[in-house]
Amino acid sequence: MLNIAIIGGGAIGLLTACLLEKDHHVTLYIRDKQQYKVIEKEGIICLPVKKRYPISVQMISRISANHELIIIAVKAYHLQVLVKQLKQLNVPLLFIQNGMSHLSVIKEALAEHITFIATVEHGARKEGLNGVTHTGIGNVNVAPYGLNAKQKPLIIQRLATHSFPIKVMQDGERLLKEKVMINAVINPITAVYQVRNGAILTDPRLHEEAKNLAAEVARVLALNFNEQWQRIVNIASRTSRNDSSMKVDIDQGRCTEVDGILGYLINLASSPIPKIIDYYQAIKEMERGDQ
Amino acid sequence: MLNIAIIGGGAIGLLTACLLEKDHHVTLYIRDKQQYKVIEKEGIICLPVKKRYPISVQMISRISANHELIIIAVKAYHLQVLVKQLKQLNVPLLFIQNGMSHLSVIKEALAEHITFIATVEHGARKEGLNGVTHTGIGNVNVAPYGLNAKQKPLIIQRLATHSFPIKVMQDGERLLKEKVMINAVINPITAVYQVRNGAILTDPRLHEEAKNLAAEVARVLALNFNEQWQRIVNIASRTSRNDSSMKVDIDQGRCTEVDGILGYLINLASSPIPKIIDYYQAIKEMERGDQ
Repeated sequence: MLNIAIIGGGAIGLLTACLLEKDHHVTLYIRDKQQYKVIEKEGIICLPVKKRYPISVQMISRISANHELIIIAVKAYHLQVLVKQLKQLNVPLLFIQNGMSHLSVIKEALAEHITFIATVEHGARKEGLNGVTHTGIGNVNVAPYGLNAKQKPLIIQRLATHSFPIKVMQDGERLLKEKVMINAVINPITAVYQVRNGAILTDPRLHEEAKNLAAEVARVLALNFNEQWQRIVNIASRTSRNDSSMKVDIDQGRCTEVDGILGYLINLASSPIPKIIDYYQAIKEMERGDQ
Repeated sequence: MLNIAIIGGGAIGLLTACLLEKDHHVTLYIRDKQQYKVIEKEGIICLPVKKRYPISVQMISRISANHELIIIAVKAYHLQVLVKQLKQLNVPLLFIQNGMSHLSVIKEALAEHITFIATVEHGARKEGLNGVTHTGIGNVNVAPYGLNAKQKPLIIQRLATHSFPIKVMQDGERLLKEKVMINAVINPITAVYQVRNGAILTDPRLHEEAKNLAAEVARVLALNFNEQWQRIVNIASRTSRNDSSMKVDIDQGRCTEVDGILGYLINLASSPIPKIIDYYQAIKEMERGDQ
């Protein structure tokens, strides 16, 4: 049993708090005063089973070093402010953010901390201020990152339980890169051509498009193309009847995460990437409803 | 009379081609084959007066050094590919892009070229493939940028005509910074609070909010706060009954340019910027229709 802090009252923060509460002592830290009051009074409601979890909750300003692990589940752009607080605490840190932009923040500001990176395959949707629907059960992948990357992640093994299984990986940066790889190929193609994930395997033209796009993405991320293409084929096959999150966002007239995925790659690239740019522009036009 | 190339078939590219065509020899270069065919056949239609401009048009792959000036009016993320072609041409370049991300591209890849930066205050909306509505007449501000910044911009003075008045400025980087300054303060506040530009002056609470946000933005951009606040007050007063572009985007359920404005500042900042982050998150939530 660990004494754990979780920072962030979004879908992943709430879900993680519920999943860990059974076997650990969890304190949830949040920014929003209204959300704080509701969770203090009613706890977190986990749907669809409608189970109620009474969780210790605190305002984020009160975070202390009185924990064995701090899980940071805020959006990447909030780290910039949060890092100042975390810097002063000598506690291992586990980061759950989309994309890769948080790596530079960790590398620069928290170089002397014990830091881990996680990707979460659980599906979660926030409902109101204190509800979360667990829409899909998946792995939590955790890898050490930074100067401590060669240490054995004992604390992570202590974190893992039956209700919170963890896959321990070697290389945090690679873990994130491989997630960006999938998101940068399957998401834009399914969104632009309005198809389910499996079409990348069954439609010869989209198969070719996906391969060309994957080749550019692998080059930008300095990953091996054949290995990554095999991973994309596996995932598209396993999720062939699913709609990608970017396709759903476009279908529902919402903004997508294209800036954090393809936009990130455009900034990173040092050689020409015409396919990435074409898909970036196509998604931007679909988002804005341009002709 | 100059022999000018304009690259880009968006609203600004089409409008600039029409405005310059009267006094210069203009060739418009575009990427899209379908648009190329329509413009070659029908020219550009400038609305609301519905005047037809027959313009020389070419596919962008055919761009040559046979011009005295190349005006680049493509989106910032397209520069990455285009720059490879421009690098080989020994022709002065004039860049019209939103935001500031193109500065690093110019600085790194085109250091030996004569380069200029422009901001366009004209309003323009693209209609179909070859139409453009001139929605507002404004200045075109041009400043030298890069190693040639101390040269006298004679070519720019030759570019200016009665139908294309130009304000020549000293410092390209400052020109863009001051535009980002305005966009980073007036746009988010009017979009979040659903008010017209003038409310920043008349509503005491929004006045205070705008001031605090402006202080952070000025700090990130290393601009003088008092000077910039005076500019914001002047512009909000001059446009007091207008809706900002970000407010209009939110009202119409479209994605905004918040990533290129506040997102850019978040990446740039090296000290805490809680207001910028709050407004970034608020706009992101409004875009995605989160609770």
